[in-house]
Amino acid sequence: MKALLLVAHGSRREASNDEVRALTNSLGGIQSDFDHVDCAFLELADPSIPDGMRRAIDAGADELVVLPYFLSAGRHVSKDIPGEVDSVRAEFPNVRISLAPYLGASPQIANILITQATNVQ
Amino acid sequence: MKALLLVAHGSRREASNDEVRALTNSLGGIQSDFDHVDCAFLELADPSIPDGMRRAIDAGADELVVLPYFLSAGRHVSKDIPGEVDSVRAEFPNVRISLAPYLGASPQIANILITQATNVQ
Repeated sequence: MKALLLVAHGSRREASNDEVRALTNSLGGIQSDFDHVDCAFLELADPSIPDGMRRAIDAGADELVVLPYFLSAGRHVSKDIPGEVDSVRAEFPNVRISLAPYLGASPQIANILITQATNVQ
Repeated sequence: MKALLLVAHGSRREASNDEVRALTNSLGGIQSDFDHVDCAFLELADPSIPDGMRRAIDAGADELVVLPYFLSAGRHVSKDIPGEVDSVRAEFPNVRISLAPYLGASPQIANILITQATNVQ
């Protein structure tokens, strides 16, 4: 079973966390390879990244993709999230755990921005 | 002349600001309605939002779209950026200045995330 875990920063503003949860629900509604889609937060909101990963694995995932919902490759993306993923990876040697590139690395972002800017006029 | 100003938060980490500048360059390379594409930062980096807007108008823009490069609709997106845009709007009554929805509001984000997660496997 394949699972996707969207990892956001987390905010003191609960509406921002709820935006991530709503996006996660919409991901679950898209036809894809993933049987299970959930989200987790680096800080300030629940579940934590390790808890989110363990939850997906408890639900039966033997393949898990962790995707950072971040725009830039700062310390959170380059160190903190990989560190958390590695710590859980060591607990589950039989689960294939991958870390996807962060959202901002997608070459499609530029086209989305142009679409977003063009439609406003 | 139509101009697009991508507005990012700005970071103490210059590499993050440079990521935004590189993205801005790639936006300029996409065939679109915009003759001028530049970026500005809410804080911690230059140019500021008002300076970026004035620069686009000085370059000849009579239509200017400001697009927040943000993932969630927090205070920066709902209050701070609109406030800065309004202050400059008052200076240039003959320029048509629009504020596009922030990146995270794009319905295409979900599809990008699924593509990003699927390609990693």
